[in-house]
Amino acid sequence: MIVVMKPNQGEDVIQKVVKKLQNNGYRIYESRGVNNVLIAAVGGDDKYDYIKQALESIDGVERVIPIFAPYKLASREFRKEDTVIRVGDLSIGGKQLQIMAGPCAVESREQLLEIATLVRDSGVRILRGGAYKPRTSPYAFHGLEEKGLEYLAEAREKTGLYIVTEVMDPRKVELVAQYADILQIGARNMQNFPLLMEVAKYNKPVLLKRGLSATIEEWIMAAEYIMSQGNHQVILCERGIRSFESIYTRNLLDLSVVPILKELTHLPVIVDPSHGTGKWRLVAPMARAAIAAGADGLMIEVHHHPEEAVCDGPQCLKPRVFKELLKEVEKIASVMGRTGD
Amino acid sequence: MIVVMKPNQGEDVIQKVVKKLQNNGYRIYESRGVNNVLIAAVGGDDKYDYIKQALESIDGVERVIPIFAPYKLASREFRKEDTVIRVGDLSIGGKQLQIMAGPCAVESREQLLEIATLVRDSGVRILRGGAYKPRTSPYAFHGLEEKGLEYLAEAREKTGLYIVTEVMDPRKVELVAQYADILQIGARNMQNFPLLMEVAKYNKPVLLKRGLSATIEEWIMAAEYIMSQGNHQVILCERGIRSFESIYTRNLLDLSVVPILKELTHLPVIVDPSHGTGKWRLVAPMARAAIAAGADGLMIEVHHHPEEAVCDGPQCLKPRVFKELLKEVEKIASVMGRTGD
Amino acid sequence: MIVVMKPNQGEDVIQKVVKKLQNNGYRIYESRGVNNVLIAAVGGDDKYDYIKQALESIDGVERVIPIFAPYKLASREFRKEDTVIRVGDLSIGGKQLQIMAGPCAVESREQLLEIATLVRDSGVRILRGGAYKPRTSPYAFHGLEEKGLEYLAEAREKTGLYIVTEVMDPRKVELVAQYADILQIGARNMQNFPLLMEVAKYNKPVLLKRGLSATIEEWIMAAEYIMSQGNHQVILCERGIRSFESIYTRNLLDLSVVPILKELTHLPVIVDPSHGTGKWRLVAPMARAAIAAGADGLMIEVHHHPEEAVCDGPQCLKPRVFKELLKEVEKIASVMGRTGD
Amino acid sequence: MIVVMKPNQGEDVIQKVVKKLQNNGYRIYESRGVNNVLIAAVGGDDKYDYIKQALESIDGVERVIPIFAPYKLASREFRKEDTVIRVGDLSIGGKQLQIMAGPCAVESREQLLEIATLVRDSGVRILRGGAYKPRTSPYAFHGLEEKGLEYLAEAREKTGLYIVTEVMDPRKVELVAQYADILQIGARNMQNFPLLMEVAKYNKPVLLKRGLSATIEEWIMAAEYIMSQGNHQVILCERGIRSFESIYTRNLLDLSVVPILKELTHLPVIVDPSHGTGKWRLVAPMARAAIAAGADGLMIEVHHHPEEAVCDGPQCLKPRVFKELLKEVEKIASVMGRTGD
Repeated sequence: MIVVMKPNQGEDVIQKVVKKLQNNGYRIYESRGVNNVLIAAVGGDDKYDYIKQALESIDGVERVIPIFAPYKLASREFRKEDTVIRVGDLSIGGKQLQIMAGPCAVESREQLLEIATLVRDSGVRILRGGAYKPRTSPYAFHGLEEKGLEYLAEAREKTGLYIVTEVMDPRKVELVAQYADILQIGARNMQNFPLLMEVAKYNKPVLLKRGLSATIEEWIMAAEYIMSQGNHQVILCERGIRSFESIYTRNLLDLSVVPILKELTHLPVIVDPSHGTGKWRLVAPMARAAIAAGADGLMIEVHHHPEEAVCDGPQCLKPRVFKELLKEVEKIASVMGRTGD
Repeated sequence: MIVVMKPNQGEDVIQKVVKKLQNNGYRIYESRGVNNVLIAAVGGDDKYDYIKQALESIDGVERVIPIFAPYKLASREFRKEDTVIRVGDLSIGGKQLQIMAGPCAVESREQLLEIATLVRDSGVRILRGGAYKPRTSPYAFHGLEEKGLEYLAEAREKTGLYIVTEVMDPRKVELVAQYADILQIGARNMQNFPLLMEVAKYNKPVLLKRGLSATIEEWIMAAEYIMSQGNHQVILCERGIRSFESIYTRNLLDLSVVPILKELTHLPVIVDPSHGTGKWRLVAPMARAAIAAGADGLMIEVHHHPEEAVCDGPQCLKPRVFKELLKEVEKIASVMGRTGD
Repeated sequence: MIVVMKPNQGEDVIQKVVKKLQNNGYRIYESRGVNNVLIAAVGGDDKYDYIKQALESIDGVERVIPIFAPYKLASREFRKEDTVIRVGDLSIGGKQLQIMAGPCAVESREQLLEIATLVRDSGVRILRGGAYKPRTSPYAFHGLEEKGLEYLAEAREKTGLYIVTEVMDPRKVELVAQYADILQIGARNMQNFPLLMEVAKYNKPVLLKRGLSATIEEWIMAAEYIMSQGNHQVILCERGIRSFESIYTRNLLDLSVVPILKELTHLPVIVDPSHGTGKWRLVAPMARAAIAAGADGLMIEVHHHPEEAVCDGPQCLKPRVFKELLKEVEKIASVMGRTGD
Repeated sequence: MIVVMKPNQGEDVIQKVVKKLQNNGYRIYESRGVNNVLIAAVGGDDKYDYIKQALESIDGVERVIPIFAPYKLASREFRKEDTVIRVGDLSIGGKQLQIMAGPCAVESREQLLEIATLVRDSGVRILRGGAYKPRTSPYAFHGLEEKGLEYLAEAREKTGLYIVTEVMDPRKVELVAQYADILQIGARNMQNFPLLMEVAKYNKPVLLKRGLSATIEEWIMAAEYIMSQGNHQVILCERGIRSFESIYTRNLLDLSVVPILKELTHLPVIVDPSHGTGKWRLVAPMARAAIAAGADGLMIEVHHHPEEAVCDGPQCLKPRVFKELLKEVEKIASVMGRTGD
């Protein structure tokens, strides 16, 4: 880190900073200008958070600037090769592009089986569908809960699809893990730390959605929480962030994170253009763009009757539109050197 | 709600919308222009979320515009008079201005008792201090946990202060509720719905911090979650939101929410200028401004040795500065017709 | 528009609103609930801005909700077919994908001719380069001004490239229009209304960059300014918006505007991934993504010696990287049914 | 600045960076860790912008971190005492609190004289009113232009008020400067550099509003533009920034900039709660808060018939409400040690 001293500080204040750093295992390099002193500190980064705040609390310190990223296990320096996550016979993060598709929520056995069948028939291998739904309103539909999980398991059995489904409550992780192939952490829970610690325990891949106003560093740090517990199977999923535009999109899909994350981390990166735009007509163009930007996969909401969907109907694709999207995506994928299987 | 049809829609599509609304208990008013049709729907708002999305999934519908706020129990319409929350002999949301002060985290028995004593001696009645700390990094200090709660209880016994402390995990609410007088929900957990449901059960006041990118409506809806379970003792706490300015402040303190919330809801509103700015030198001016804007109280971080604090040192006030702040706040409070006791 | 009355308003207030609307040529439809009244008003939208604010100033009015977009000439309703803009033998907005490439700033005759030659040799047809540079600092390089324009003209003569260059000052539009084939309005000037009125006069295509925090509607309204003066040759250029992420990108490139603008307007839409990311390593993935999202073209910064560039070196591509990018873009373009000439 | 090298760079790359810095007059301090090298560079900051970008264009450079603020004349280091700006017998930025009040736009001679008289009678000394109005729509009212300036001059003559009015076009600065006592630069023009250069010429105080998404540094740099031309009479005016909340406020008033700017610069800081909120009911609380935060003055929109105002009626105060606000502000001001004259 770099400690920027306020102008014209006495030697005693400078030495106070230096001592603090040395006592915590840092090596020190001073740069002294006419009125200004910079202190570069290298090493000992384990206590970075604490040291930064402690130093900024000293009166002669202007500010402390971090130099190195605070994550370790998630970084490219830690692991040079891409992490490829295995789900049964599938791999996520390899050459193979993976699509996760299905309804926003599991609404009934019939609904789920019908959509699962069409998803499977279109060549997709992973079924999404929420049994527990985080909703802004306490009066909205919150999911079929365990019944929903059972339907997902039945759909898996009938179609051979793998299941990704959200878990919101640390008390339910054990239950959800019995049914799901991939545990999903939703955007609102990206910094729900007890939940992150809990999902880490079950040796299942975790799909970690980006928080609505999470910086890239905060997002990677949330992955680091899971990885620090020994579970390195984390899939990062961009799903749109909050912006000042509120009329034409629900969220602002940030595709630049795809190449940025590929540089900073070794983890697979997928994109959810359904939540990321909130409008079904925008899903196909942004799905194509995501793949062209280098994403390892997509999460797409599909519903055979969007007008009857209990949630997120406006962003669901009808089966016919979904199939067209898959064709378009496949063309882009092939240009990108990706294979569909 | 208002349903805006796309231009030049056939009568069949319009009737589909009308039917959907009527079947859900809405009364309908149509406005027909040359090419455009608007359908106003009144009543039946219980299923608003569902109906909006269902209608927006119909192809001829341009968009659906909400007219009425989605919250009920939290609204001024539901309750005209201000809610005044009792904590022992104190009231929050009445004429009496309330300050909650203390360290970011409970670090040790000695640290807490020392700060509690100075807080009490300065005339403040509520002690803050975290036993469970949400931290961006898995490698940072996460609180003394139950031991921290015990120290808080001891501090209460010794000083007569009431205790507000954060709970992050639904599995810990029962435990924290045994120690705390006010349960705090942190910014990152504003939409942690299982946690909101859990804290609602213990018949204790809940201090609900605003999420980093929460709209005013989302924030009130989070309060509505708690209230919908029968616990109407919710205190709203502004603590800064995310913005594009990243150098000079940690968060952007939004004081306009104070008069806005006072108009929309009947709940008490307090302001945390410590997290809201992240810099101790900004705490006093923003504390004064918060009271001038009409806030019912403040939450302030105080530490006798900010340079040794395990977290948030740069935003902690030293005892001397804290006492000066209290004097300044008192003067503004008295202009506002507020009393200190 | 929809006028939402506050609850329980007297008939006199309601009639005041109705009169105001009728006097301004609106037809009225009332929806009366138990406590609430909505007034839909259709027609007479010419004075929308004025009427909205006048109504919101009436005490019994809760708020006024716009229903129809405020732009006309730029809308798809006004013109169903895509606008194709002719620049010499080129067309922008048609099947042909157009790339505009060149240095951030014109630095010298030699620099410009060298880059222009390599741009031309790579098959690109439009040269970018700033003679007038808006810079955050008054102490930075502000461009070669008229000398820069002369070099651009010489580069056009020598290479056959068309020229797009920025104009910042209404007093310079006449001069710049003598040299440029396309007049560029920079992000900071998107709502510089005197400048918009001035560029509209010269019957040249105008490339209108999106402002840093411009909503989609504000951006289209800026285009409407130019079009309202009789010049319908406006090209919209996304170049990244301001967000809370400040470490890994300079701006946040918003690709969802591509399909949104294509739906709302008939104008060509191009994307500038150089400014849109600020990092050269992100330019190629975002360029591919832009084309996959449906953009009509790209604006790319190229420099033979980025390390010597007087501005924006970090986002400039070196010639070799630029040529690779063109190949990748071409592949995506061909999947999208676009041709390179 | 600090140059952070990518891990494991060869000595040649490091020397390339060092040379570049030394050739531009920087002194160098290297900090070498096991894999990482930091290079601190002090001095020579005149070319900071150029050097930063040049270095970031070198392949082995991770990033360049600025250490010192890029502004000089506007900084507290340059001038320790507060700048107090004289307007006739008034001072802005001293002990005296200054209110600027009047209509959004000059609409007619009668309207302006009536409002000016009531503003004067309430004890305020500066009249605001726009003769040139920047409007989002080309179809809206754009001001009475020179006629409006004449009415302002007449109002000054009749009431003794000083005049602050906006100028949007560099071609009109000379004209507006003949009428105005203070030249106002609006939010949309904060980075209209030719306009900033032009207003600097007339030796009149310049009121510089913050841009909608301007960082604090960008705003001060805009002031630096004016000051770099020899005109140091710049008043900074916060008027709300863009945020994700779009229902309850028009803009987000950022009061934390008041104490921040007071620390970073010596310039007067005033607040416009009318534009800063867009709702007249929020104006009084935010005006009080602004003064409590330490602002040197306020700009307030007043209209005797907001329902008839041609622009911004919803944020205008009626005379009676305005007079109440002045009383409340005065009380806060007196607590803050401010005098009204």
